[in-house]
Amino acid sequence: MHSFAITAPDRGMENSLKHKVDRKTKPPGALGQLETLAVQIGLIQQTLSPSLDRPQMLVFAGDHGAAKAGVSASPQEVTWQMVGNFLNGGAAINVFCRASGIALSVVDAGVAHDFVTVDGLIDAKIAHGTASYLDQPAMSAAQCAEAVGRGAAIVRQLAAQGCRVVGFGEMGIGNTAAASLITHALTGVALADCVGRGTGLDDAGLARKQALLAQAAGRWQAAGGDAAPLAVLAEFGGFEIAMMAGAMLAAAEAKMVLLIDGFIVGAAALVAARLEPALVDYCVFCHRSAEPGHRAQLQALRAEPLLDLGLRLGEGTGAALAFPLVKAAVAFLNEMASFESAGVAG
Amino acid sequence: MHSFAITAPDRGMENSLKHKVDRKTKPPGALGQLETLAVQIGLIQQTLSPSLDRPQMLVFAGDHGAAKAGVSASPQEVTWQMVGNFLNGGAAINVFCRASGIALSVVDAGVAHDFVTVDGLIDAKIAHGTASYLDQPAMSAAQCAEAVGRGAAIVRQLAAQGCRVVGFGEMGIGNTAAASLITHALTGVALADCVGRGTGLDDAGLARKQALLAQAAGRWQAAGGDAAPLAVLAEFGGFEIAMMAGAMLAAAEAKMVLLIDGFIVGAAALVAARLEPALVDYCVFCHRSAEPGHRAQLQALRAEPLLDLGLRLGEGTGAALAFPLVKAAVAFLNEMASFESAGVAG
Repeated sequence: MHSFAITAPDRGMENSLKHKVDRKTKPPGALGQLETLAVQIGLIQQTLSPSLDRPQMLVFAGDHGAAKAGVSASPQEVTWQMVGNFLNGGAAINVFCRASGIALSVVDAGVAHDFVTVDGLIDAKIAHGTASYLDQPAMSAAQCAEAVGRGAAIVRQLAAQGCRVVGFGEMGIGNTAAASLITHALTGVALADCVGRGTGLDDAGLARKQALLAQAAGRWQAAGGDAAPLAVLAEFGGFEIAMMAGAMLAAAEAKMVLLIDGFIVGAAALVAARLEPALVDYCVFCHRSAEPGHRAQLQALRAEPLLDLGLRLGEGTGAALAFPLVKAAVAFLNEMASFESAGVAG
Repeated sequence: MHSFAITAPDRGMENSLKHKVDRKTKPPGALGQLETLAVQIGLIQQTLSPSLDRPQMLVFAGDHGAAKAGVSASPQEVTWQMVGNFLNGGAAINVFCRASGIALSVVDAGVAHDFVTVDGLIDAKIAHGTASYLDQPAMSAAQCAEAVGRGAAIVRQLAAQGCRVVGFGEMGIGNTAAASLITHALTGVALADCVGRGTGLDDAGLARKQALLAQAAGRWQAAGGDAAPLAVLAEFGGFEIAMMAGAMLAAAEAKMVLLIDGFIVGAAALVAARLEPALVDYCVFCHRSAEPGHRAQLQALRAEPLLDLGLRLGEGTGAALAFPLVKAAVAFLNEMASFESAGVAG
């Protein structure tokens, strides 16, 4: 397995950062969560004047063997069709990245489709979709390690180019189901509380998804129920989740700010944080998803997201929408006058 | 009294807007509150392709006679000092307006200070602060009408220049106290539940504020307790709240999008909405303030704010921080591909 050297940021300058925040021309604490965020980013970058250089969104796409069994409301070909939509600039994540000033790349982690080479698409395909976890592990341990390594390599290249903020997004029909299984296996929260409607299952579809995922969880339990993070990741997939986990580990190692989207990205963050607990210090949890299993993840990660807008789209949209708040936190730390400089009674 | 011709937007195109939203390449409803917002703005502008032209923040400043009696943790001169900070570009609202692409003007509605004429400052001063509502009404009915009228005139000029989005902010030491009294008088919620720590009162200071405001509410009750919106406004002030109410009424009349900040701006919105209930259809409630009285306002206005970040700064900061979400809602409506145009299975 790859190893990552992730340590919590040195808190030696925390008091200096808090003092800088408290001398700004505002009542102490009046900027709420943005103050916490400003201090967090200062600590990550070990500076009183942080800088969000070259923000980059990575959308990891992959297909899931179990999708054909009916765990999603959408047909599997929507995965590659949406990748095409991303590459053409027409999806929600394109619109929100443009609006927020974030560059966007799409990573083919394992889509069941052959793409032509095109700008903006990174070919890191492990296979044409995972195996179905209803019958066998979604991927082999070797495939899982390869996915983690390729994700890490993509982020290390970004870091070398000066990127200091990386957003995570995903596309993969069936991946709320995989995220539910991972969340259940790693947190111990009852499976039923980790499963939602995904792209829009009706009541009958939800019941079918619940039954299929209970079957998958039962197969895993019968095989020993290994709850080690990488075992769970290989068991349930998908390639896009595994590759994101590797990308997150490399990003924290490179002391980047990680923009964590919703439920599926959260599953990757949960895996990564179980491997390297200090990873969460580098994470900005961007929004609270409407998918019910997100709550279990957020509790496990002790995360308080920035936005709560009832979003359940994925793609990284919540991360892109929250990025202006992250920029605002850094901007007030860098640009606001102090009581002294402004001549205001403190 | 001035009259305003405010009617609810024609809902005739609501189904067309919802259809456009639902044909975008995303599961139905997956963008949560942003979908509601996109439809609202389309209805306000009566178009399937809205446009947020020339966004403008107006920060209304005024002083409060009661401030000298100890209803605030801060001395009264902070009002004019902070106006100076706004004009120099060093306050939080400056930083966030720059970040969000919003022009900023400061309106002297009634600061107890004489400013020199300077770009960015609109002189609409009614008086050098209100009278203290502990002893008498904060302003006369004539002053109140004048303030409403001047606020309306400022917004009509913006509308004539092509502005279609106006954000509301405020500065005025003591104005959480006035907002608490207005909220209590107009909603009937117990005064104690409408009063908070403002810029940062300690427990003793909060108890003193509670006692002083109870005295003011008692004086108003003893004088008949007229709960007509303009009577309450004149009774408790301040000039910045009255001028904002007038500005909001003119903005709704001009079919602008109104960005409503937190607790003090909310008090003006409450007054304006009691005068013209259709005003709320033009309002985007930008954030949930940490001031406890905001809850009563939001319930009375049936509002579901976009952000909940524990902000309690005022100035319009919550509105400026939420504006990127408003832009994102319009952008997805205008720019996202449909299932048909993208060739994605719906």
